[in-house]
Amino acid sequence: MTEPRTVGILGGMGPEATMGLMDRVIAAAGDDQVPLVVDMNTKVPSRISGDCNVGDMDPAPVLVAMAKRMQAADAAALVMPCNMAHQYAGQIAAAVDIPLLDMVVLTSEAAVKAAGEGGKIGILGSPALQETGIFDAAVAAAGGQAVYPDDQGMLLDAIREIKARGVTPYVRDKLVMASHDLLWQGAQVQLVACTEFSLLERAMDPGAIKIDALDVLVEAIVAFSRNAA
Amino acid sequence: MTEPRTVGILGGMGPEATMGLMDRVIAAAGDDQVPLVVDMNTKVPSRISGDCNVGDMDPAPVLVAMAKRMQAADAAALVMPCNMAHQYAGQIAAAVDIPLLDMVVLTSEAAVKAAGEGGKIGILGSPALQETGIFDAAVAAAGGQAVYPDDQGMLLDAIREIKARGVTPYVRDKLVMASHDLLWQGAQVQLVACTEFSLLERAMDPGAIKIDALDVLVEAIVAFSRNAA
Repeated sequence: MTEPRTVGILGGMGPEATMGLMDRVIAAAGDDQVPLVVDMNTKVPSRISGDCNVGDMDPAPVLVAMAKRMQAADAAALVMPCNMAHQYAGQIAAAVDIPLLDMVVLTSEAAVKAAGEGGKIGILGSPALQETGIFDAAVAAAGGQAVYPDDQGMLLDAIREIKARGVTPYVRDKLVMASHDLLWQGAQVQLVACTEFSLLERAMDPGAIKIDALDVLVEAIVAFSRNAA
Repeated sequence: MTEPRTVGILGGMGPEATMGLMDRVIAAAGDDQVPLVVDMNTKVPSRISGDCNVGDMDPAPVLVAMAKRMQAADAAALVMPCNMAHQYAGQIAAAVDIPLLDMVVLTSEAAVKAAGEGGKIGILGSPALQETGIFDAAVAAAGGQAVYPDDQGMLLDAIREIKARGVTPYVRDKLVMASHDLLWQGAQVQLVACTEFSLLERAMDPGAIKIDALDVLVEAIVAFSRNAA
């Protein structure tokens, strides 16, 4: 086997999601570890204007600076364990000479592969995902159609609850309801497209097929590191 | 408050100790987060020759390269969550322009402060700590005297058990016995000087005063980041 390549994580959005990603990479890599460099920057301006995080600053320059730092620290590729931050994927990729393993693109491709050409893909995440249309474009490019739970306010409530109090039965109920709504809309394949939700287990309708963005990213990281990607 | 300073972690020795340190820094920092950059390098040659890790390569050049990477990634100070790696602290500090917050020195100072001038400080860690004398020098410089459990093989057994099977009652019993031995030798203040042991709770004689190297490091990281150190 060739020497494993180092993957750089633009992290801290929030710290728990970054730690969750690192835990999963360590577990997935087993004895044949994957070297990581991590920028745990907890001062990235909000990716969701008007949402839980404070500030109206533009996150793009901060994310670009982080990407350059991780390139300077010998990362051979970059990842971001935050779906919303992928709004700035183009600007980040343009600023460095190494690839960004794009969680939104990879997850959309995995979902459409599971659902079949033209299939409906349910998106469970922040309301800002629907507003910005990140997944609409990526799912469409992969050959599917993104659909969203009708009650987006409920999802925002759930995210706020997780950030404030962690995983509660209340959060789980809200997510199962949203997942059930997506099934009724014809989306059996459903994306967990919020790293807060990735920390949950069993928060989906049992009839749904779950594709977790964080799991897709873990697989991409391990494959890239081993030079197989 | 001024902008928090970024601390670089030379990590991966092993990954669990690094994750444990990151968890503790995130918890200790609270809302006012501490930015971190982390080199999770799982390919650092063994710090303990003849021990659990494989290889006879010199870890010093690898650690120096990691330190330079973290400096390139804008770290304002460095830390290593591995006591044994502190054998190379001098070489690392000489290779970069930023300070190394030395866990061995800081912990020894904290222990002697707790034990009083001339006090005996018990060292719970790898037998290699006694062989290399890292803590002998640091504790003596702080004004105390390092003492070790008589049965060092038992400690090595415990480390191997944790690496192979995690925390078991067997490991806990061994550590409590070692701690008890230190008490009999007159060392009430005892250092948890192995990041594997730091992951344990209640693995010490109840009569001992515990100073955990990882906790001392967390405090130093938060203080440095906030410019108070």
